[in-house]
Amino acid sequence: MANQLYQYSIINALMDGVASGGIELSNLQELGDHGLGTFESIDGEMVMIDSISYHLRADGSIETATAHNKLPFAMVTNFTPTISGRKVSLPDKDAIYKTAKEMFPSTSNVYLALKIDGTFQRMKVRAVRGQRYKGQPLSELGDSQAVNEYTNIEGTVFGFRSPPFSQGISVAGGHLHFVSAKRDCGGHVLELEASGAEISGAVIKDVRIELPESVEFNEAKLEKDAGGIGKIEG
Amino acid sequence: MANQLYQYSIINALMDGVASGGIELSNLQELGDHGLGTFESIDGEMVMIDSISYHLRADGSIETATAHNKLPFAMVTNFTPTISGRKVSLPDKDAIYKTAKEMFPSTSNVYLALKIDGTFQRMKVRAVRGQRYKGQPLSELGDSQAVNEYTNIEGTVFGFRSPPFSQGISVAGGHLHFVSAKRDCGGHVLELEASGAEISGAVIKDVRIELPESVEFNEAKLEKDAGGIGKIEG
Repeated sequence: MANQLYQYSIINALMDGVASGGIELSNLQELGDHGLGTFESIDGEMVMIDSISYHLRADGSIETATAHNKLPFAMVTNFTPTISGRKVSLPDKDAIYKTAKEMFPSTSNVYLALKIDGTFQRMKVRAVRGQRYKGQPLSELGDSQAVNEYTNIEGTVFGFRSPPFSQGISVAGGHLHFVSAKRDCGGHVLELEASGAEISGAVIKDVRIELPESVEFNEAKLEKDAGGIGKIEG
Repeated sequence: MANQLYQYSIINALMDGVASGGIELSNLQELGDHGLGTFESIDGEMVMIDSISYHLRADGSIETATAHNKLPFAMVTNFTPTISGRKVSLPDKDAIYKTAKEMFPSTSNVYLALKIDGTFQRMKVRAVRGQRYKGQPLSELGDSQAVNEYTNIEGTVFGFRSPPFSQGISVAGGHLHFVSAKRDCGGHVLELEASGAEISGAVIKDVRIELPESVEFNEAKLEKDAGGIGKIEG
């Protein structure tokens, strides 16, 4: 279904370290062609562009994810932009959301899917290093994440701007992942700058969330932790 | 899809008085055969049993809702119970959730659909009276709701137990509507007692939420108000 968001699990479960197993990539790819997520044991970042999913690890490696890879958290959509290829100058990451607000007025309480293509004068990304023990909370992994910064790098950013009420379920505000045009690096976008990128987007108002049926998920506290989510995933 | 929850809008929007228009009943009935909700302008309660939707108004009237009736908030599912007709003694409403917890262990963070059939020694229901002006918040309507109490009344309760993280989106905890076997009364369940009812239920872990695209929805504050929701919808 075009521009339906399919989300597996909720971000607070990942914050709580619920990351054993997850949805298999082959199933996820039936539900969307663009998206983001993480892999079992929170081992690195996933970005899906044009139905190909990349696995970006903290050691700097990148590979194409395979059908049986499992994702304990993921958001995908069959991305059908209603506004495409709009030229934008992005002095920083927040400029993306300001631009999106102009592109899609009166959409504060729905989701947006956003894609940015171009050469980025600056691109700062991280890849999370993975749990050292089962159930280790994501908040503990932030300190050991690998951060890389690139200059004048061509590539694609894809992600979602989620509404405030979704905090704890999705990441309220923006959540963007990046992969280079050469497909040799990428990660969760921390900061960026681009003077002549192109932005495409679509409104998402149809949201499907599949909740894990595991005991691990059902026994997690899933407490609201907007500050923690913002620190790690914002 | 069996036991998928389809929800239109979010409960916080209703709390904020976002109740102009909504999903048409004919569309809703394609997405579920059992459920609950309210009608345009928060005019009364909806309960859907076996694909028939009843409109219960504060003036005590009840009628079968029709295809073009609009619902600004609704939750429905194609109810396919995995546990059926279990005999229960329910001294109060909370006993339903205690029973559900025994029926479905380790389901704290997913949804449950629950149906209770039987003769209720006591059934206290309310029907909300409707907005007196566009955008009037639901919290203001609580004081003018019509409350009725019945004794030894046969009928059916249907509703959902929603997980804590869903507060603001669904009604965390329980949300139950009732219609009598004679289809001559019903409403939102406030209190009940039944010594020999039968309970059926299903786990719901696939949740589809459709967000309104209206300016009214997108400009609503949708602030978390767990206390307010509990007072009105709990």
